[in-house]
Amino acid sequence: MVVKIGILKCGNIGMSPVVDLCLDERADRNDIDVRVLGSGAKMGPEQVEEVAKKMVEEIKPDFIVYIGPNPAAPGPKKAREILSAGGIPAVIIGDAPGIKDKDAMAEEGLGYVLIKCDPMIGARRQFLDPVEMAMFNADVIRVLAGTGALRVVQNAIDDMVFAVEEGKEIPLPKIVITEQKAVEAMDFANPYAKAKAMAAFVMAEKVADIDVKGCFMTKEMEKYIPIVASAHETIRYAAKLVDEARELEKATDAVSRKPHAGDGKILNKCKLMAKPE
Amino acid sequence: MVVKIGILKCGNIGMSPVVDLCLDERADRNDIDVRVLGSGAKMGPEQVEEVAKKMVEEIKPDFIVYIGPNPAAPGPKKAREILSAGGIPAVIIGDAPGIKDKDAMAEEGLGYVLIKCDPMIGARRQFLDPVEMAMFNADVIRVLAGTGALRVVQNAIDDMVFAVEEGKEIPLPKIVITEQKAVEAMDFANPYAKAKAMAAFVMAEKVADIDVKGCFMTKEMEKYIPIVASAHETIRYAAKLVDEARELEKATDAVSRKPHAGDGKILNKCKLMAKPE
Amino acid sequence: MVVKIGILKCGNIGMSPVVDLCLDERADRNDIDVRVLGSGAKMGPEQVEEVAKKMVEEIKPDFIVYIGPNPAAPGPKKAREILSAGGIPAVIIGDAPGIKDKDAMAEEGLGYVLIKCDPMIGARRQFLDPVEMAMFNADVIRVLAGTGALRVVQNAIDDMVFAVEEGKEIPLPKIVITEQKAVEAMDFANPYAKAKAMAAFVMAEKVADIDVKGCFMTKEMEKYIPIVASAHETIRYAAKLVDEARELEKATDAVSRKPHAGDGKILNKCKLMAKPE
Amino acid sequence: MVVKIGILKCGNIGMSPVVDLCLDERADRNDIDVRVLGSGAKMGPEQVEEVAKKMVEEIKPDFIVYIGPNPAAPGPKKAREILSAGGIPAVIIGDAPGIKDKDAMAEEGLGYVLIKCDPMIGARRQFLDPVEMAMFNADVIRVLAGTGALRVVQNAIDDMVFAVEEGKEIPLPKIVITEQKAVEAMDFANPYAKAKAMAAFVMAEKVADIDVKGCFMTKEMEKYIPIVASAHETIRYAAKLVDEARELEKATDAVSRKPHAGDGKILNKCKLMAKPE
Amino acid sequence: MVVKIGILKCGNIGMSPVVDLCLDERADRNDIDVRVLGSGAKMGPEQVEEVAKKMVEEIKPDFIVYIGPNPAAPGPKKAREILSAGGIPAVIIGDAPGIKDKDAMAEEGLGYVLIKCDPMIGARRQFLDPVEMAMFNADVIRVLAGTGALRVVQNAIDDMVFAVEEGKEIPLPKIVITEQKAVEAMDFANPYAKAKAMAAFVMAEKVADIDVKGCFMTKEMEKYIPIVASAHETIRYAAKLVDEARELEKATDAVSRKPHAGDGKILNKCKLMAKPE
Amino acid sequence: MVVKIGILKCGNIGMSPVVDLCLDERADRNDIDVRVLGSGAKMGPEQVEEVAKKMVEEIKPDFIVYIGPNPAAPGPKKAREILSAGGIPAVIIGDAPGIKDKDAMAEEGLGYVLIKCDPMIGARRQFLDPVEMAMFNADVIRVLAGTGALRVVQNAIDDMVFAVEEGKEIPLPKIVITEQKAVEAMDFANPYAKAKAMAAFVMAEKVADIDVKGCFMTKEMEKYIPIVASAHETIRYAAKLVDEARELEKATDAVSRKPHAGDGKILNKCKLMAKPE
Repeated sequence: MVVKIGILKCGNIGMSPVVDLCLDERADRNDIDVRVLGSGAKMGPEQVEEVAKKMVEEIKPDFIVYIGPNPAAPGPKKAREILSAGGIPAVIIGDAPGIKDKDAMAEEGLGYVLIKCDPMIGARRQFLDPVEMAMFNADVIRVLAGTGALRVVQNAIDDMVFAVEEGKEIPLPKIVITEQKAVEAMDFANPYAKAKAMAAFVMAEKVADIDVKGCFMTKEMEKYIPIVASAHETIRYAAKLVDEARELEKATDAVSRKPHAGDGKILNKCKLMAKPE
Repeated sequence: MVVKIGILKCGNIGMSPVVDLCLDERADRNDIDVRVLGSGAKMGPEQVEEVAKKMVEEIKPDFIVYIGPNPAAPGPKKAREILSAGGIPAVIIGDAPGIKDKDAMAEEGLGYVLIKCDPMIGARRQFLDPVEMAMFNADVIRVLAGTGALRVVQNAIDDMVFAVEEGKEIPLPKIVITEQKAVEAMDFANPYAKAKAMAAFVMAEKVADIDVKGCFMTKEMEKYIPIVASAHETIRYAAKLVDEARELEKATDAVSRKPHAGDGKILNKCKLMAKPE
Repeated sequence: MVVKIGILKCGNIGMSPVVDLCLDERADRNDIDVRVLGSGAKMGPEQVEEVAKKMVEEIKPDFIVYIGPNPAAPGPKKAREILSAGGIPAVIIGDAPGIKDKDAMAEEGLGYVLIKCDPMIGARRQFLDPVEMAMFNADVIRVLAGTGALRVVQNAIDDMVFAVEEGKEIPLPKIVITEQKAVEAMDFANPYAKAKAMAAFVMAEKVADIDVKGCFMTKEMEKYIPIVASAHETIRYAAKLVDEARELEKATDAVSRKPHAGDGKILNKCKLMAKPE
Repeated sequence: MVVKIGILKCGNIGMSPVVDLCLDERADRNDIDVRVLGSGAKMGPEQVEEVAKKMVEEIKPDFIVYIGPNPAAPGPKKAREILSAGGIPAVIIGDAPGIKDKDAMAEEGLGYVLIKCDPMIGARRQFLDPVEMAMFNADVIRVLAGTGALRVVQNAIDDMVFAVEEGKEIPLPKIVITEQKAVEAMDFANPYAKAKAMAAFVMAEKVADIDVKGCFMTKEMEKYIPIVASAHETIRYAAKLVDEARELEKATDAVSRKPHAGDGKILNKCKLMAKPE
Repeated sequence: MVVKIGILKCGNIGMSPVVDLCLDERADRNDIDVRVLGSGAKMGPEQVEEVAKKMVEEIKPDFIVYIGPNPAAPGPKKAREILSAGGIPAVIIGDAPGIKDKDAMAEEGLGYVLIKCDPMIGARRQFLDPVEMAMFNADVIRVLAGTGALRVVQNAIDDMVFAVEEGKEIPLPKIVITEQKAVEAMDFANPYAKAKAMAAFVMAEKVADIDVKGCFMTKEMEKYIPIVASAHETIRYAAKLVDEARELEKATDAVSRKPHAGDGKILNKCKLMAKPE
Repeated sequence: MVVKIGILKCGNIGMSPVVDLCLDERADRNDIDVRVLGSGAKMGPEQVEEVAKKMVEEIKPDFIVYIGPNPAAPGPKKAREILSAGGIPAVIIGDAPGIKDKDAMAEEGLGYVLIKCDPMIGARRQFLDPVEMAMFNADVIRVLAGTGALRVVQNAIDDMVFAVEEGKEIPLPKIVITEQKAVEAMDFANPYAKAKAMAAFVMAEKVADIDVKGCFMTKEMEKYIPIVASAHETIRYAAKLVDEARELEKATDAVSRKPHAGDGKILNKCKLMAKPE
């Protein structure tokens, strides 16, 4: 049996690029098939409506994952409306601003995964060009991966896959990813590695606050440029700290790896030279 | 006028996640609209065919960008076939294995951008889990961004956009991105920063060789695990070196930034506190 | 004329060890004489009362600086009461929890300097021993110094000194040190150095939040240990980032130095080999 | 029973800020009460005399700790004279220049703790401003803490406390802290961490030699500025090396922690998640 | 019995400076005596002939080691000719360009050890001065030592020594040192340390390619300077990665050490504080 | 005209491997020809005598450079005796222990260059194996190169070469290389880079003291192993600091390069892309 997963990407958060890849990291998993529809960087209601409708009406997957910034913004709300009415189980993956709408999403019959360490970018024209944008995303992806946030997301979606396979009701995740939930998923062997990952997570969270201040609450260019620049310096250091955490796990050959088997099962290993089981 | 860009993502290379974002880094550019269709991590002929046809027949954008690993593999070849016959200007973005088919692509009436520093991942189940996969991609994205490779790609697509806007024939890029072309696009002020970026580019190229060896040319687990692990250590250092290059540019306040204006024009600035022009 | 400065240190914040030293960094300034009274790590009302009274009644300096954690706690409140009634101009230097009492302090006729980047320590017995405590303080001192917060404090006190010397009314500072005020005082030449310093400041601020959570809002040892450990990892990285900022200033020989002259005047220089003026 | 400890701080060495804090790192120890009298950065005979007499005649603690630079200089000698005659057990804590007077101090009936890795600062007006001063102290505190020197000092004072509590004669310490004594106190688990700590200690010792050369033996500004600057670069690297040593201990979860219990007892633990005992 | 070893050094590769030292690292081994003849940086046929003849005809050691760049170049070929005809067992140690002549050397009755990670230097006058040259060599020596390549060379020569001592036929080594052979010799305890060492080895190999491109295949100064500079940045990072690998081994006190005993035997130890056996 | 230089290498100091290479870094200088005779790691009187005599009696170069540890030890004294009587101008290059014999060398008619930052190795069998030895040398070479010590040596020998070429009397250098002389030769543009280099130099000097203590003044294995290990940690950090200094010079494109022209002249350049002149 092959589970068909539909993914809607409207606008971008750090998790967006890897949400589909983390289900099938070696592209050899034979129990899922993924279709992605997206509207690029934009997430206006009209773009979202077009792709969401196409997903619900044409692709008709077993379940749908919508991912993008701020699930409480007009575009994502349009997606929630369509998905809520669409009859296909769906989950919204978003960042911290979505937390205020989490109960609303639950009431709409939608699952949600809200990632507190997936911060807004420093979206000021004087600062953000394509290169800076890509570097920011590289840092965020590292933080998502190394703190365990990515694993929480992946587990939530895999649970939906496994339910489809087993003919059970699809469990709609209702998760706000905090530093505690993230590091728990990473199975750190070294408690200092865990503490470093938690620190990186919280630093990433703070990046969001700084960027909100720089993008929405500060008018003067000579003030907001240093603010958004400081946010990107912070995420850069959060990424460095995640690297340090992982190196600490390497020091005792204890990096947790949970690859997918060909049949989709999640395997487990720690020693680098061992077989996953 | 709004140029409609169709992007096909089948399988993943480091450039895939940012190819659409780098056209509209602040999501406020009013001259383009992007639609993405993708098949997740997989790039088999059947998946590719489905999304490519949908793009050509339903979305019908002004031009199409196909991006994914190895343009010479069966799946991408299927895409090339469909796009070649589809009557919509199209460009294939891929990694080094595509170089051997570049003339074929030109003959098929397709443009191409082949990025030598976008290496294959260490796709061994004993090593690669979703976390390791995401970290590798984070490192590659940093290398793409910091060496200038990303800017070459973005410029090539922007040139297509501008041609549509100006009613000119769409120029199909025919580019193999080398370290020289990449660093030229980055406008480094400091020659040592440039040399570091070139070094990082070539290190990333070498990662591909190592991963090919580890994934396809080595049978025994106890041999190939260290090989793919060494490839990921190498890309991690390439990413570090890119960071060092950028910090060197920061030291004299000379980081080149080329943000998009709201109307899509590419602006230019170096001093952090200056306005882009 | 020699201005007599009385300093009360009850309990400890990062600024405490250097508050007197920063007025006379080479111990050769002939216009001030400092007396310090302190109660060590403790800041209970009885200890505070004893030293505050001794200062007001016996030492009788030209003005008094009280420094310690949380100016709104019972001990510091006792000091405020005594100083408010004591007839000697006085300023309270404290950390962020004092902000809620800043108007009260103003009404009591006291000056205040509240330093947002001087965070609470991870005061859990399972984590904090004398070594960890000292390392935390080392990191905080580096952040205070490198972000400019220390310079704001020093300037505020020096202004009081200069007023005494000139026979003017002593200006009671009313300052909440934010990242903006701190970096302004540091006269950064390089805008990236400034952004890094701002990032470090905000990271240090966040440390306070994490430690409050770990010390007061979490009961279980297995939960609060990683929390306070993560706070100390964060301040360690804030200190590293400050170092990076300073190295960036060194790169163009632009470190701002403002030593005191022998007569107490504040000199100024940037190039390392130049004379201060 | 509460032991009353009087601390005199005249002038500043790296240990000065933390000498009282290291006895009561969480400010909750109920068996000691500390009073500090200090003269700020200065340590001239008149300032020292005033505070020393006040301590002996007014505060009258169970024992007195005098701390400051060069115990053989005129100011500290005045303190030694007063303390020797004062009838209260007293110990002098100082830096390497005090070693030449250690027998004299013993003859005066005083204890001593002389810390070889607590170096003189680069006290040249062209170089040292309040910011540089604070950074130097941050580095020295890190070296003191991470090499174990701080623990030797703390143990020596705690032994005096415990003796008072047990009604025994107060043991006056007679210790010159070498790298061997320091690292022994730190209970390093990893021998490389220990070697790194020793290296950092000796580098810090060398800083003193360089600063003496730069401050007292070199006349020309263009010569002594680079010398004192090189001393501060050296202590910066000593602090980095101490950090590396501690990270090595973290790698196997073996950081030695010896917090005080509420009753003053010294507890012991190594694994981060364990209870101290 | 004392084995007399003759070493010819003509031109320089990274291994040249340490080839004799690695046989007798503490200069106390009583079973060998070494004579070195060399021609400095040059390796032209006339220089090589002079020293090679002197070695064969005057020094007449038990066996001869010739070391230098490119064993297939005219100078080294002259050495091979003389050594092949000289009747004394001889081995050629060289870099990767020698691989193409390895069968020829075997036919000439010579042993060979060809080190793939001993790269050509960036020999362009605009870039390479004595300081840059020395730094490059420092980096290469670190890579040779830390990856295990040096140990392979040393073992090969020690085997020749031991054979002379035991009166056996001298085994002429026929070895191309790859990353696998190198790391195997290093007995890494931590598989990540091993992977890092392999990565560093391969990066060093790549340096050779870059330098060949910069020195022989590129004409224009403005092109070849960045190329050779990028090669040196790469070897600098390879050396850093080797350091990281060794620090990882230190983390669990597992650095492999194989010192020579006084009688020449190779001892073995891992724990730093243990005796070699 | 070709100047013939004879180099005697008996035992090893950090400068030994590069003393000949630094005269002809690209092996294309047509005004000198170098012959090296050496005795490997050993420097006993008999080995030294053999090679020194062969140099004086057979090679008969224009002048002779003897290099090795401790010029005051028996072996080097034998060399001084032979060279003093040999009638060929000669210079002794050595480390700090040679300073006590510098007047004696001058009286013997010999030149000398004594390098204070070229420290003794940690020559203890439990610690030093060939790998550790090579890494130590790599670090020392980096320190020699980056501080300018190497340039002082090279200049001294080049002066002798130029004198021969010009038919003048060969100037015998009488130099003790201190940190001041070293950094002066390096022409640092950035004063902080200079200060860092001076710091690294002095750290390297201190390494010698530590290794003397560990090798000659400490009997117990459990004591001397950490001592020599700490020495090697120190030189490792000195090498890191030198790297930091050089990176600082790169930041403003100000690395001083002084390559040899083909005719032996010393050229000069700073900007990487400029021609040397």
